[in-house]
Amino acid sequence: MAEKKSKYDLIIIGAGPAAYCASLYASRYKIDHLIIGAMPGGTASSAHRICNFPGFKKITGLELMMKMREQVMEYGVDEMMDKVVGVVKNNDGSFLIQTQSNGSFSCKSVLVAVGTERMELDLPSEKKFKGKGVSYCTTCDGMFYKDKIVAVVGGSNAANMAAVYLADICEKVYIIYRRDKLRGEELWIDEVMKNQKIEVIFNANVVEFLGDESVTGVRLDKDNMVLDVGGVFIQIGSRPALDFDLGVELNEHGYILVDKEQKTNVEGIYAAGDITTNSNHFEQVVVACAEGAVAINSIYYWLKKS
Amino acid sequence: MAEKKSKYDLIIIGAGPAAYCASLYASRYKIDHLIIGAMPGGTASSAHRICNFPGFKKITGLELMMKMREQVMEYGVDEMMDKVVGVVKNNDGSFLIQTQSNGSFSCKSVLVAVGTERMELDLPSEKKFKGKGVSYCTTCDGMFYKDKIVAVVGGSNAANMAAVYLADICEKVYIIYRRDKLRGEELWIDEVMKNQKIEVIFNANVVEFLGDESVTGVRLDKDNMVLDVGGVFIQIGSRPALDFDLGVELNEHGYILVDKEQKTNVEGIYAAGDITTNSNHFEQVVVACAEGAVAINSIYYWLKKS
Repeated sequence: MAEKKSKYDLIIIGAGPAAYCASLYASRYKIDHLIIGAMPGGTASSAHRICNFPGFKKITGLELMMKMREQVMEYGVDEMMDKVVGVVKNNDGSFLIQTQSNGSFSCKSVLVAVGTERMELDLPSEKKFKGKGVSYCTTCDGMFYKDKIVAVVGGSNAANMAAVYLADICEKVYIIYRRDKLRGEELWIDEVMKNQKIEVIFNANVVEFLGDESVTGVRLDKDNMVLDVGGVFIQIGSRPALDFDLGVELNEHGYILVDKEQKTNVEGIYAAGDITTNSNHFEQVVVACAEGAVAINSIYYWLKKS
Repeated sequence: MAEKKSKYDLIIIGAGPAAYCASLYASRYKIDHLIIGAMPGGTASSAHRICNFPGFKKITGLELMMKMREQVMEYGVDEMMDKVVGVVKNNDGSFLIQTQSNGSFSCKSVLVAVGTERMELDLPSEKKFKGKGVSYCTTCDGMFYKDKIVAVVGGSNAANMAAVYLADICEKVYIIYRRDKLRGEELWIDEVMKNQKIEVIFNANVVEFLGDESVTGVRLDKDNMVLDVGGVFIQIGSRPALDFDLGVELNEHGYILVDKEQKTNVEGIYAAGDITTNSNHFEQVVVACAEGAVAINSIYYWLKKS
């Protein structure tokens, strides 16, 4: 890794769509900045197919995010893969960003774009089998279940997309959903319903993962049903991926409250993307990008004035 | 032009980024819709290069918009190039969209994405050099004038900010302003006045753009002055491109007031993109796209319920 400076005008925390689009705008505005992210591309990289990002008919999440990253890097931006563990406001109004492995960095302004992470079922047997038959990412792990019988837990867009993708690889795919009707984009629901390899089990929840070394089945709360499956993909939604104390106001679900400028209640701290309450909380790549752009416009004028 | 139906679930008025991204989401949600726009791609098509749309390092506005249009058309969407002249709400809650040349169309919901138009100086030579040295957007085009001498026409916030931004990139920046004093925030005026690279010419108007293939100078109405400049940024404001009576609440400048769902005060009418008051009114392609996406998500649930 190249040597980083110790002081920047702006540090962007996160490396997903909001962060990369923000960086693009920051570069266009000539704002000296550093990106600190856990994973290049963020969770968007794990989407196996994106059809609704304008400009690309069909693209994998990884391809789209690598295109954005390449575009960001054209401007010679500093990027560091690390975990932020703390943000401290100094007496002079600047911030100290503390990382897990690379020490601390100072900056005048902060943009938090950490996004969300997949929700878990929180079953004791789920922890035991994580990476041994329990997965949260079809794109990452789908191929390990080639020609096997698998289950997807959930019933909205992510679950439907996951099932359609897995049906191309696996022998059979169960969808296990607690409601009586699939939700999300009608086109994905159509694809699920017409796919001969997919069987939807409604009004059911997984209560236990069964197996010895790895998953061999799941027990449901419906008719004491047991399904023989070699893998289970949990697709039940997401939660804010903010796991350090930022000291800003959050809503009751842990998302960052921002105003129309993407500004938090702390002077100098802005937020963009899925982690915020803006854009009617519609978690989409293009929406996150837009919030990143709006945030940089605000930060630019704020830096000029402060 | 293919025969259009007379009734749709949704009619999108406009054919720019907000409209096309909205159409993409509408197709994914299987909302039966028609696009009625004045020009395919809207005013975004006129940007001679776009560097800040995520996913594309460098692309002309026209190319980007034609990519979006192609993507929209993959879903077999009905599109009509025409001017909307009226929107009437029927007694049953549906709407009648009246066009200039193709009669009327009925729909359950309306998305208004007509955008804005830049205010122009209305000089004959301005039209000739549009995209060849005459620009209306510093964020979009500033970088193309690196190390050149440029002029900004205007003297309020937008012009002052543009001049400061351009001074970071260009060799020299003239501000040409018709009044004797800059207007807007004092801090911006300070920034302009203390910047060695900016020279303000007061009490002056551009009367002619000079050049052969592209702009090489401007003639002013003050002392028959001629300035040698490679580019001119017209920053005298933009205006909403809403030229029919929609019957919804507007702000004092004529922009459509929308809530976080992109909903207007009239049940069934939504708006997205530059024509709205949302996204801190940051007029950018990616921001307009995002508003289009958010609007369709709202319209989908509204149509389901109504």
